[in-house]
Amino acid sequence: MELKVKDIDISSGGPLIAIMNHKDAKMLDIHVMDRIKIRRRHKVETVVVDIAQSDKLIPKGRLGVFEEVLSSLKIRNNDKVDITIARKPLSINYIKKKLDGQRLSKQEIDQIVWDIVHNKLSAVELTYFVAACYTNVMSTEETILLTKAMVKHGETLRLNKYPVVDKHSIGGIPGNRTSMIVVPIIAAAGYCIPKTSSRSITSPAGTADTMEVLANVAFSIKKMNDIVLKANGCIVWGGSLNLAPADDKIIAVERPLEIDAESQLLASIMAKKHSVSSTHILIDIPIGRDAKVKSMFSALKLKKEFERIGKRLKKRIKVIITDGSQPIGNGIGPSLEARDVLWLLKRDPRRPLDLEKKCIGMCANIFSMVGAKDGSKKASDILNSGRAYQKMIEIIKAQGGKEIAAEDIPIGKYFYDILSSKNGKVREIDNISISRIARIAGAPHDKGAGIYLYKHVSDKVKKREKLFTIYAESEREMEYAKEAAKKSRVFNIK
Amino acid sequence: MELKVKDIDISSGGPLIAIMNHKDAKMLDIHVMDRIKIRRRHKVETVVVDIAQSDKLIPKGRLGVFEEVLSSLKIRNNDKVDITIARKPLSINYIKKKLDGQRLSKQEIDQIVWDIVHNKLSAVELTYFVAACYTNVMSTEETILLTKAMVKHGETLRLNKYPVVDKHSIGGIPGNRTSMIVVPIIAAAGYCIPKTSSRSITSPAGTADTMEVLANVAFSIKKMNDIVLKANGCIVWGGSLNLAPADDKIIAVERPLEIDAESQLLASIMAKKHSVSSTHILIDIPIGRDAKVKSMFSALKLKKEFERIGKRLKKRIKVIITDGSQPIGNGIGPSLEARDVLWLLKRDPRRPLDLEKKCIGMCANIFSMVGAKDGSKKASDILNSGRAYQKMIEIIKAQGGKEIAAEDIPIGKYFYDILSSKNGKVREIDNISISRIARIAGAPHDKGAGIYLYKHVSDKVKKREKLFTIYAESEREMEYAKEAAKKSRVFNIK
Repeated sequence: MELKVKDIDISSGGPLIAIMNHKDAKMLDIHVMDRIKIRRRHKVETVVVDIAQSDKLIPKGRLGVFEEVLSSLKIRNNDKVDITIARKPLSINYIKKKLDGQRLSKQEIDQIVWDIVHNKLSAVELTYFVAACYTNVMSTEETILLTKAMVKHGETLRLNKYPVVDKHSIGGIPGNRTSMIVVPIIAAAGYCIPKTSSRSITSPAGTADTMEVLANVAFSIKKMNDIVLKANGCIVWGGSLNLAPADDKIIAVERPLEIDAESQLLASIMAKKHSVSSTHILIDIPIGRDAKVKSMFSALKLKKEFERIGKRLKKRIKVIITDGSQPIGNGIGPSLEARDVLWLLKRDPRRPLDLEKKCIGMCANIFSMVGAKDGSKKASDILNSGRAYQKMIEIIKAQGGKEIAAEDIPIGKYFYDILSSKNGKVREIDNISISRIARIAGAPHDKGAGIYLYKHVSDKVKKREKLFTIYAESEREMEYAKEAAKKSRVFNIK
Repeated sequence: MELKVKDIDISSGGPLIAIMNHKDAKMLDIHVMDRIKIRRRHKVETVVVDIAQSDKLIPKGRLGVFEEVLSSLKIRNNDKVDITIARKPLSINYIKKKLDGQRLSKQEIDQIVWDIVHNKLSAVELTYFVAACYTNVMSTEETILLTKAMVKHGETLRLNKYPVVDKHSIGGIPGNRTSMIVVPIIAAAGYCIPKTSSRSITSPAGTADTMEVLANVAFSIKKMNDIVLKANGCIVWGGSLNLAPADDKIIAVERPLEIDAESQLLASIMAKKHSVSSTHILIDIPIGRDAKVKSMFSALKLKKEFERIGKRLKKRIKVIITDGSQPIGNGIGPSLEARDVLWLLKRDPRRPLDLEKKCIGMCANIFSMVGAKDGSKKASDILNSGRAYQKMIEIIKAQGGKEIAAEDIPIGKYFYDILSSKNGKVREIDNISISRIARIAGAPHDKGAGIYLYKHVSDKVKKREKLFTIYAESEREMEYAKEAAKKSRVFNIK
């Protein structure tokens, strides 16, 4: 059937989709979510069909196409294309198989990941895959195959070095900018550490958002390679590297239900580490009521799986379980966190000591993995000697940034102090409220917005003493954040 | 936030969706598939958000809305509306709960069905619900609650009669037009039988498509009530009655994977029967390699579930398991099937005896359920006396049709005979090929298209004897169907 292209000027955000008029669809016996092949000269593309019930948007004889299809086929408005019915992608059968509780083979997992990466699955089909892996948990073997398939169908950074060190903290804890301390310490000690980080999804800042206050973070694989060769380390945004593109698409359909299929979490982290050639990886699992991992039991189960998969991928893995019950560091929000980091590296008395202690512990673990002795002392020495700070400046410059004093980082000009209503001791800090208030104040898109904490759990506090300050870049957002802070019980003082 | 409406002139086919510019979305910290409340004067509607990454379709300050949102809020292009963040529907938590393997309460199932009916769930969220019920099979109790919720949130036909008879054949068998024989026999015997049927989804004809050759089938509940009061029975299309609207939306997301969650199949059938006040229901489960139910084991399991649910809904249920290994009747396609039905009711020698035998058996079962004796003889007498035919004409007229002779039903003017290539006995007929060829020939949208079978399993056949004829209304479709027939092995003769 020949149809005339209509550019409907919408992006699907991924999947290849075309819209047929209901009369044309009926002629070819095509239903919503069926596949058609679109042919234009020598190019062919298989896409998912949506059907227009009225003739308003897509009249008979026209084929509405989303931007992804336009660019894939290099077609334009009013071009004539030939339409035929296409089979469903093979991976549909494999997804069904997993939903039925069966194990998948290497070839089957590979096909699913290929179809995800190449936008061959509709959101509904991808959701079935995620639901299947969530309810019929993947075996270690399947998770390894998924990890390898994600690496295979993405970009990779090949470093001819050994060891290549890496770290990953599982999310959900406000502050917690360990990478920006650990990376310069490890790199200053002479080890290669090509760190990729994420931007915030639901938190006030991801490491990539905070690093962006000091330097660029979006690079190609080639540019990342140059930076690592120059500075021995980097702190870049993983999102621009296309390391495991299937993963981002999976996360998009996980979000509505806020589920986190264990096998996908494991494969996602391991694939991204594997893609940058890491050989020695430290995994930090913070546990806490509001953290991603809520109990010691789940943490230990996850630890075991990481170790199993690490062994099979021939990687040294060390998993540490840490306290995720309260924010780590004082600043929450990109600029406030970046200031904490510079204070810490510069040995300023205002530096957050909880973050410092955690990072020294993490470095000690990394040093022991690579066979270096007295790791704790080594990390402290590197910090105290200023070598970590110098390395950080080197990395910042390699990533196109400039040296800046902590005090010169612009912080939101609107601020508001929250005071204690009584004398007592801090029993709990509510991570979820902290994150929410910081986001409402404008973080992470307003870099200078967020929260600065003066107290942590176990600290004594007097009536009318400052608990935290809210910073915002606009008056309106300040008002919203104040309102939110007054309604929440952020500190539990007794 | 105030935005100006942009009518994007597309229907979502159900879900309430609006598209925000990425910059506006960032301001409110809104992600794809989050919810917003749209307020216009006193009307408020909660919708799912999609985000436009470029400014082409939805510039900053505009809100793109699908037609469902326009009509729900009674807004127009360029109207100003107020946008606030909204919570996710409660049912998201319950879907998550089911995905985690827990049982759902009455209130939770009710909320899910309400949200489905009112288009509050995105396709991804609904898919999670279907996947959850598929992998963590619902208990009988939950299935009953789902059935009741589907009935509650749909239209109902209240008949002050007892008994009210009904029947349902589980699909997948070409031909098999039992309803159009059973309904007139039962109604002629004086029992009320308000039959609702479906249109074809993947088969060459549904009962509603075939009945439509003889009469109208799309009515409101009120009109259906009039027809049933007048003729004691009807054969109408369930799709226009809105009996269990949640069901149709569930089926739409089941289609891509061709899954059929058992609890949903049960709830779907029982809800539609419950909605029209049926008290005595015969369920026919055909089993066969290509049927929906493939093994005696699955059929017996399903039978038990039907009986359990029937008991709890205070309905008499009888389940028969029948042969679904080959087509039933000779005609496949709306007009060819309608001709079979009229021949059968008129006692024409060309009538299909396999269909007649099956229908007499079904009527005998129904008569025994309502306490009438000698059911088999009673059904044959009603057929032979012409009373079933008279009743059918009465129903056809009540549904706005006219009496027509079987020979006067127009059949596709293009036809092609498929002959046997050898002497032997028919061992198997491939239902899937039969359906596919009939659909390619034009069924069900071309009423006169389809297949007419001369042979069934166990029949002897001579070389060059006719096996079946393909009918089509256009030459082009005839060519495609001939091609498909030549490539398939429809008859297995040995």
